[in-house]
Amino acid sequence: MLESTTGIYFASELLQLLRDGQPRTRSELAAATGLSRSTVAQRVDELMGVGLIASLDAAASTGGRPSARFQLNTDRWLIIAIDLGAKHCTVGLTSLRGDVIVSERYATEVSAGPEPVLEEAVATAMRLIEDTGRSVRDVAAVGIGLPGPVEFATGRPENPPIMPGWHHFDTPGFIRERIDVPTLVDNDVNIAALGERALSPDGGDDMMFVKVSTGIGSGIISGGRLQRGSRGIAGDIGHVRVASGRPVRCHCGNIGCLEANASGPAIIEQLNAKGLEIGTNAEIVARAREGNFLVAQVLRDAGRMIGEVLTTCVSVVNPATIVIGGSLSAAGEHLLAGIREHVYANSVPLAAEGLIIVQSRAASTVGVVGAGILAAEHVLSVPYVEEQLRLLRATAS
Amino acid sequence: MLESTTGIYFASELLQLLRDGQPRTRSELAAATGLSRSTVAQRVDELMGVGLIASLDAAASTGGRPSARFQLNTDRWLIIAIDLGAKHCTVGLTSLRGDVIVSERYATEVSAGPEPVLEEAVATAMRLIEDTGRSVRDVAAVGIGLPGPVEFATGRPENPPIMPGWHHFDTPGFIRERIDVPTLVDNDVNIAALGERALSPDGGDDMMFVKVSTGIGSGIISGGRLQRGSRGIAGDIGHVRVASGRPVRCHCGNIGCLEANASGPAIIEQLNAKGLEIGTNAEIVARAREGNFLVAQVLRDAGRMIGEVLTTCVSVVNPATIVIGGSLSAAGEHLLAGIREHVYANSVPLAAEGLIIVQSRAASTVGVVGAGILAAEHVLSVPYVEEQLRLLRATAS
Repeated sequence: MLESTTGIYFASELLQLLRDGQPRTRSELAAATGLSRSTVAQRVDELMGVGLIASLDAAASTGGRPSARFQLNTDRWLIIAIDLGAKHCTVGLTSLRGDVIVSERYATEVSAGPEPVLEEAVATAMRLIEDTGRSVRDVAAVGIGLPGPVEFATGRPENPPIMPGWHHFDTPGFIRERIDVPTLVDNDVNIAALGERALSPDGGDDMMFVKVSTGIGSGIISGGRLQRGSRGIAGDIGHVRVASGRPVRCHCGNIGCLEANASGPAIIEQLNAKGLEIGTNAEIVARAREGNFLVAQVLRDAGRMIGEVLTTCVSVVNPATIVIGGSLSAAGEHLLAGIREHVYANSVPLAAEGLIIVQSRAASTVGVVGAGILAAEHVLSVPYVEEQLRLLRATAS
Repeated sequence: MLESTTGIYFASELLQLLRDGQPRTRSELAAATGLSRSTVAQRVDELMGVGLIASLDAAASTGGRPSARFQLNTDRWLIIAIDLGAKHCTVGLTSLRGDVIVSERYATEVSAGPEPVLEEAVATAMRLIEDTGRSVRDVAAVGIGLPGPVEFATGRPENPPIMPGWHHFDTPGFIRERIDVPTLVDNDVNIAALGERALSPDGGDDMMFVKVSTGIGSGIISGGRLQRGSRGIAGDIGHVRVASGRPVRCHCGNIGCLEANASGPAIIEQLNAKGLEIGTNAEIVARAREGNFLVAQVLRDAGRMIGEVLTTCVSVVNPATIVIGGSLSAAGEHLLAGIREHVYANSVPLAAEGLIIVQSRAASTVGVVGAGILAAEHVLSVPYVEEQLRLLRATAS
């Protein structure tokens, strides 16, 4: 009947306590938790055994000096973070804290299908690991963002429109045949939302990240948690019908979708129809920056249509911050001005009060940061740590 | 950098463990948690001291038989649950588990202002307490649902349109002058969502509750948690503009809102304009049940407009279930058919797949159940229990 209960996993909660980064002695851990001295000693040994915590004093060993202090072993492990777009891929290595150690961006075609695209990403990760003098055995997990809907529980894409050959592809299975570690897969806007949140000065507990690029989508963090919904597609605003849009057919099969009216391809089509030859999102951005009036006008109209859908989101989700990212967000004020114009003019006062709409600060790296956090969260989560400890005990006995 | 950390409050986590209802001995509690025997004994005494757990064996006392078993003391406490509507109020008493012990519904006018309305609710609760042979000292908390936006953190209504005199009224302060216990206040659709969830066979972890009555609003449970948003007004769908609606002015000042097109008063106005004299929501329901074709038609149109807004919600929130409640939901299939028609025809396939849209099963009591759960959750929450234990220790020393 009650709304929620707290899972009780005292063994790994010591680790949760240490996630604040502060080193603590065994006595401090016992005092902070109420656990018995012997339980703390045993748990500390186990968590050191699976490499998740380390002693600050290199000489300290099991049963060593009572003053030895322990902390989260963030640098022991690597996370492979992969942010895959329609036409590019960024592969990075991060720590368990989510800090990016190294990253590399290269051109690719997601439409080539899962095997060659993921094979190249894994090869790039392997090379980065070697370049930094580390070993593949240091990899704790892999986090991947894909440019389409993903069933989060299985890591399989679900009818992704721009990803032929990827439908229901077992992405974690493919990765684990090469690197046998937990592999977390989510859509690119969700991992971007996690990345933006990590970079957010206000904590980002109630934040929407909106990607405006070849597609349009959003990732929603509400009450401090990423919202996935029942099928993992919460935030899928690209296929909401816009009343102020043209009744054009969308690649999804429906008519008048936001994406068919305000995405990069839709803007290109409108500009071409007005006699301006433009072929890519990058050209839209370049022309907008040059001050082209036609481009500014079409971008502002696109912004108003995105604003129409976001106005409903403001009522439904009530975010504190909306972050506009994706390649077209770099076009400057025109898109943002159209969004702000519609949202502030049409939202209910209480929801609009204090609402901030800003441009993403970290468009190119935010996906890798988010993919790293997605995977690190899993490695440090209570159920996963409990499983590791169980395996350790089974091996020991 | 990381997404979330677990708050560590080992003292009250014993209580969280006992929330499953299963009685346990001190040794079992020590084994299940890893806490030392002395810590467990001390915590058990403290939790008994604040009356939140009880021994199954009445003769067991501090330091008593080692086989004494302890469980959550749900029947020791009462929750006063108040569900206030525009023209009626339901006052109930519930247990800490959310079971309704007794409830009473009576006519009132929320527009009379906060003092007389709340005074009457408190008097009703006092009488119910006396009638059931209990004492006001058994009351652990009060939960209240109000028919308008509420800032949850302070319990103050925020410019509620149908509640003159209530703006920023210190509802918890008023209650605590009469019964000095924690008082939780939320809007009526959020508490209805909590109540529906408690009655939901599938757990209701991803559920939207939609109220269609004099006003239109929704309460959203996503990932198992009630979503309030940054200002507590998440789910406020009544003032979303509907493209298929008439451009009528809403009482909120905006034009074309869902509420101005599909609420009880809007339906009455449309029926009157067509020559059918109807004055109340109850009459709409009665005529619909009689099979009046005009009423059926207007209800179905209203359903389509509600469906238009819900289609966007299906993409943004991705619920598994949408429950339609409020006084007009009793009109039968016409409203529901209009909603289903629009949502299933226009939602993205992955979100619509498996989506269930149903009529509320418990329209009249669901608010009291939800208000009880809202308050009981607070009483059993880690921060509140910790505070109680601190006060107990301060008194003891």
